[in-house]
Amino acid sequence: MRNSVAAFIERDFFTNFIIAVILFNAVLLGMETSDVIMARFGPLILALDFVCLMIFVVEIGLKLFAYGWRFFKSGWNLFDFFIVGIALVPATQGFSVLRALRVLRVLRVISAAPRLRRVVEGFITALPGMGSVFLLMALIFYIGAVMATKLFGDGCADLMIAACTEQRHADLLLWFGDLGRSAYSLFQIMTLESWSMGIVRPVMEIYPWAWAFFVPFIMVTTFAVVNLLVGLIVNSMQDAHAEESNEKTDAYRDEVLSRLESIEKRLDQR
Amino acid sequence: MRNSVAAFIERDFFTNFIIAVILFNAVLLGMETSDVIMARFGPLILALDFVCLMIFVVEIGLKLFAYGWRFFKSGWNLFDFFIVGIALVPATQGFSVLRALRVLRVLRVISAAPRLRRVVEGFITALPGMGSVFLLMALIFYIGAVMATKLFGDGCADLMIAACTEQRHADLLLWFGDLGRSAYSLFQIMTLESWSMGIVRPVMEIYPWAWAFFVPFIMVTTFAVVNLLVGLIVNSMQDAHAEESNEKTDAYRDEVLSRLESIEKRLDQR
Amino acid sequence: MRNSVAAFIERDFFTNFIIAVILFNAVLLGMETSDVIMARFGPLILALDFVCLMIFVVEIGLKLFAYGWRFFKSGWNLFDFFIVGIALVPATQGFSVLRALRVLRVLRVISAAPRLRRVVEGFITALPGMGSVFLLMALIFYIGAVMATKLFGDGCADLMIAACTEQRHADLLLWFGDLGRSAYSLFQIMTLESWSMGIVRPVMEIYPWAWAFFVPFIMVTTFAVVNLLVGLIVNSMQDAHAEESNEKTDAYRDEVLSRLESIEKRLDQR
Amino acid sequence: MRNSVAAFIERDFFTNFIIAVILFNAVLLGMETSDVIMARFGPLILALDFVCLMIFVVEIGLKLFAYGWRFFKSGWNLFDFFIVGIALVPATQGFSVLRALRVLRVLRVISAAPRLRRVVEGFITALPGMGSVFLLMALIFYIGAVMATKLFGDGCADLMIAACTEQRHADLLLWFGDLGRSAYSLFQIMTLESWSMGIVRPVMEIYPWAWAFFVPFIMVTTFAVVNLLVGLIVNSMQDAHAEESNEKTDAYRDEVLSRLESIEKRLDQR
Repeated sequence: MRNSVAAFIERDFFTNFIIAVILFNAVLLGMETSDVIMARFGPLILALDFVCLMIFVVEIGLKLFAYGWRFFKSGWNLFDFFIVGIALVPATQGFSVLRALRVLRVLRVISAAPRLRRVVEGFITALPGMGSVFLLMALIFYIGAVMATKLFGDGCADLMIAACTEQRHADLLLWFGDLGRSAYSLFQIMTLESWSMGIVRPVMEIYPWAWAFFVPFIMVTTFAVVNLLVGLIVNSMQDAHAEESNEKTDAYRDEVLSRLESIEKRLDQR
Repeated sequence: MRNSVAAFIERDFFTNFIIAVILFNAVLLGMETSDVIMARFGPLILALDFVCLMIFVVEIGLKLFAYGWRFFKSGWNLFDFFIVGIALVPATQGFSVLRALRVLRVLRVISAAPRLRRVVEGFITALPGMGSVFLLMALIFYIGAVMATKLFGDGCADLMIAACTEQRHADLLLWFGDLGRSAYSLFQIMTLESWSMGIVRPVMEIYPWAWAFFVPFIMVTTFAVVNLLVGLIVNSMQDAHAEESNEKTDAYRDEVLSRLESIEKRLDQR
Repeated sequence: MRNSVAAFIERDFFTNFIIAVILFNAVLLGMETSDVIMARFGPLILALDFVCLMIFVVEIGLKLFAYGWRFFKSGWNLFDFFIVGIALVPATQGFSVLRALRVLRVLRVISAAPRLRRVVEGFITALPGMGSVFLLMALIFYIGAVMATKLFGDGCADLMIAACTEQRHADLLLWFGDLGRSAYSLFQIMTLESWSMGIVRPVMEIYPWAWAFFVPFIMVTTFAVVNLLVGLIVNSMQDAHAEESNEKTDAYRDEVLSRLESIEKRLDQR
Repeated sequence: MRNSVAAFIERDFFTNFIIAVILFNAVLLGMETSDVIMARFGPLILALDFVCLMIFVVEIGLKLFAYGWRFFKSGWNLFDFFIVGIALVPATQGFSVLRALRVLRVLRVISAAPRLRRVVEGFITALPGMGSVFLLMALIFYIGAVMATKLFGDGCADLMIAACTEQRHADLLLWFGDLGRSAYSLFQIMTLESWSMGIVRPVMEIYPWAWAFFVPFIMVTTFAVVNLLVGLIVNSMQDAHAEESNEKTDAYRDEVLSRLESIEKRLDQR
């Protein structure tokens, strides 16, 4: 019984059917954002959405029955399980965030379509190689956030100085008032978005030496990001290189060596 | 008859003449944007523009006659056909968009000049390799747009909260009011343009946790774009590598193997 | 006589002396920007600046005497000649631009220091390989500029529409009023600077479909820039690869082939 | 005695203990930024912070005792020495900057954790290869800053022209008033942050040809940055390539050559 269910859910037809349901569900979820469509077809769309959700529940139920506890060994199954689980949490309680999270259901198309799955798996296998650089960037961010909070987090420390206005004091508190705000502002600065006109120039009105903190921060984080990129390129190049060229080369080398050996043997025999 | 026409339009002279007409036409189209020039030489420029267009029509007519239905098998011919076709649609009806599309005629220089043609063909052959990542990004964008519309598309959901002003409510509707607006705003955020000062900081005035949606969105899309780039580099590197080094290597390998074989043969003969 | 002058100016001492003069001159030119320093040491600085200039004139005179017309065969010599020539144009006429161009004299350190020279020569040799893509981008820019001028260059074409304000009409004229303005605005949009909040969103107030022009423009130009980058990487990788690995490989291959040949000969002799 | 101390501080347990102290100290330094936490646990946190600092002092003392003057031969030891030294400078004098610099102590985790140490060493070894390009960029920046100060540093040179307003005059002085301000503004422009809407468009109101200075500046610096990136990629690719493939290839080549030699010898013997 278990085996026949497993055979059924591993058939191409079943996979394609699930992908079709996910895509149809994606369209429904898109329609739900339109007030005009909801006003006319609201109940129908919600009903179809419910049907899609039920199909997913049945699918996961079948997989659980077929594979038993092995089901939870695959990361993709866990992914499906939680994503469908979120949608089952009663959304009637006015939790708009939970309702928005239900849209994540469309992400199931990644686990269902083998091609997309391979791309994402490629992304994920690239992550550990970047682990050390990520750790380093997290460190730089933490230190940067603590320093920025200490340096600029009190607003204009001395409210009496001429350059301090209500607005500037409030802006400094908003940008660097606590660790979280500083980390967000530094992330913005790392993406180079309005770093100068929006943040550093106003800060320099109060603390004229502020550039000595922010310019090195930009250089260091940009350099780290560039190194991430370089590492990614070098790694995938090596993988591609190793895969492709070696098969042919190895065959050639084996042939040369075996021929040399046979020549030596023949010379020895005489 | 057909063959002699085909021979005529395949001569270098004819190709160069057409390129010259396209470039001359480009200059005319540039002049048409200047009110001063049009006031003085308007009728002349329009007449010359018409002559250029007629030359293109005759060129395509000759090609159609020479190649018959095979004409439509080449993507570049279809490209020429539609671009000249657009220009023939009566522009007198005040369709300023159609008139602007006539400028696309200058793009014909790509199909006419073999060097540019090869560059564009290189771009196009690079696209399929990026297909899966594009699909993934389209998916992320769609999900992101639906979620953003659900989360922020109602403006300040509760108009009573202190942080809600007329302006902020209107801005939220403008940025995330429907699926299209959300997709456009997310595209802007992906290009990192004013993402924080322009969009996310104002949104956080109303929804303080909004960063938890946008910061991961930026990270995921940036990472996907970086992977696109890495894929492109690795692919063209492999192509270049395979092309270049193998000819010489293959010749060397063949020689080594044939010599080893001949040595073995001589040893066997004795 | 000529030969001894040529020997003199090719000595390391002479080159290092000229580099020292250029760097000293660079410091002087920097000081000239400070009103405080100029108020106290103005005449001295201007005198020293003149001395530096005279040294350059004498240097180029010596080179001209030593090499004769061959002097003008080297691009770097022409570069030095023009840069020193600019500085000799009387700057007393209040041409502030010409006076600013005199600062370009500091660029002579590139032609004088062999290491920097090689870097710049590396840049310049990379350019022709990118020629076709540059041509293509120039084409896209020209077409984009003509189209943008035709589409948005009249301001709000119909001044009666509700969304049209004085400011918006003026902005549209400023951004896309003629070919030059459009090209500048498109360059800004290509660098992604304020493209959405600064330009496209305001334009969309009047022409709601404007995104359909700008978003593809951004995608195409970004893709072309990325391809430039990929081309650069692949080219310099191939150069580096060819240079490095082949010497050792060629030596090995030659040895293998010559040994095989000698074995065959010995087998034949018997 | 010295040797047993050296053996003690080189044990894994000691290294891990120091890393743990650094991380614990990092958390404390983070807490110090929160007014709420400091109000309740201030004295405790400061005391623990002092304990951590003392542990670092003892650690460096032990290392100094164990290694003697060799201690200062390692760059990482100097790094630790100065970072702990900064923290010992009396912070009671109200130097908020010095107090902020104490946070740099967290950077010690880099020198303590071998994995992070290797990443940073990788970064640092990549720097010399980029030396020439850095020199070139410094040159371009210096020349650019001098020229910008000369061209735009006087504000609207002629205050009578219609386009000159109080605000614009002040902005020009703020952006390009002296060498330092110009260098900062050019750095901002190189990062493409608000370069057009924020700086160049306002400058063009007064000096309409200003784009002829800034657009080439952007192109040249961007091209230099891209070349830095390309150089980095090519270098680390070559390193990776040389490391990986050559071991196996060298072994193969050695075997082929030695076998050929032995065949020749056997042929000679007979």
